[in-house]
Amino acid sequence: MIALMTHPISMPSLRRLPLYLRLLEQWRAAGRTQVSCTHFADALGLDPTQVRKDLAAAGASGRPRVGYDLKQLRDTLARFLGWDNPGEAFLVGSGPLGRALLAYEGFAARGLTIVAVFDRAPAAQERIGDKPVLPLSKLPDLVRRMHVRIGILAVPAAEAEAVARTMAEAGIRGIWNFAPVRLDLGPRIVVEHIDLAQSLAVLRHRLAALEET
Amino acid sequence: MIALMTHPISMPSLRRLPLYLRLLEQWRAAGRTQVSCTHFADALGLDPTQVRKDLAAAGASGRPRVGYDLKQLRDTLARFLGWDNPGEAFLVGSGPLGRALLAYEGFAARGLTIVAVFDRAPAAQERIGDKPVLPLSKLPDLVRRMHVRIGILAVPAAEAEAVARTMAEAGIRGIWNFAPVRLDLGPRIVVEHIDLAQSLAVLRHRLAALEET
Repeated sequence: MIALMTHPISMPSLRRLPLYLRLLEQWRAAGRTQVSCTHFADALGLDPTQVRKDLAAAGASGRPRVGYDLKQLRDTLARFLGWDNPGEAFLVGSGPLGRALLAYEGFAARGLTIVAVFDRAPAAQERIGDKPVLPLSKLPDLVRRMHVRIGILAVPAAEAEAVARTMAEAGIRGIWNFAPVRLDLGPRIVVEHIDLAQSLAVLRHRLAALEET
Repeated sequence: MIALMTHPISMPSLRRLPLYLRLLEQWRAAGRTQVSCTHFADALGLDPTQVRKDLAAAGASGRPRVGYDLKQLRDTLARFLGWDNPGEAFLVGSGPLGRALLAYEGFAARGLTIVAVFDRAPAAQERIGDKPVLPLSKLPDLVRRMHVRIGILAVPAAEAEAVARTMAEAGIRGIWNFAPVRLDLGPRIVVEHIDLAQSLAVLRHRLAALEET
């Protein structure tokens, strides 16, 4: 189970917090101990007042003309984001995308551990690294026994809706959806979608605009 | 080279266009021939007026009380997004993420072909599917000879900045960045970032808020 502090915070502010944390880690590695809103603002092209508001929404307070203690600020943001409070997730989909997510270096540092991998029809004895690939039919029972609340969906578009419903019925409450399809599972399930098609559209459009200038 | 129509369009509108296209493809498969803004609005939880503005910004015009011809609208949006006008990209990074991107089913349908794969130090004769993995040192010459303008960055964070600079100096104009690091390469290079850490932060925060209710 995840226990995060949930101050009211806007989506744009929330999305900036990982950027601040990444900078704090870089600065800590470089030996810095104090930081100010202006440092963040300069590094990210933001307004210092906006930075201060974002940090305050995450529960961090600085001192006028001194700024923030770097380590304290890092701990506050990491706690707010749950990065110091490991959550467990089930991954469904053992194709290339599922394998990439399993190998991704960044999840552990951000408080997420993939504890099991499922597929609709795994080959006998199929493994990815040290993990066996389990048949999807075992997911509901394991969700209940292990109290896992996060499901990562890395299946083809045509299967996504059915797998997501299986997850939701089993007790998964948050779905991280990498399939290229929108899911509507009602208000009691959180769905966060990584949409590569959207991102690609933005890249190509901005590139075309640049090349016209 | 990509030649897209670049009407002025807001980022939120641009990001919604792939969603409309996906619906149009579903509806076409179901045999529909006419659609209205209300259909999109209902399916996506948007305001019909917003939908009409988005479609107009992409160059589509409907008829009052009739709506849009489905096929015509599909072609207009696909043309606007460049999906009917294949672009070529180089991929750098042959680890799990690079392999996943190469295997991803959706790029070809969205007008992007990965024409070569590079890695800093590929194993001799290394291949992914039908593609040899080339040493990064060959990238600049191939960018010039093949006029490739899009680079996909799927390397570890520590290498991302150096590889991005190599891409930019070789003539790559748009970088699709999957490495967990911000890149600042100046105004002549477009960078579109897929930030898994941000998305994960949003998922976990929304999940925590849901579980408090």
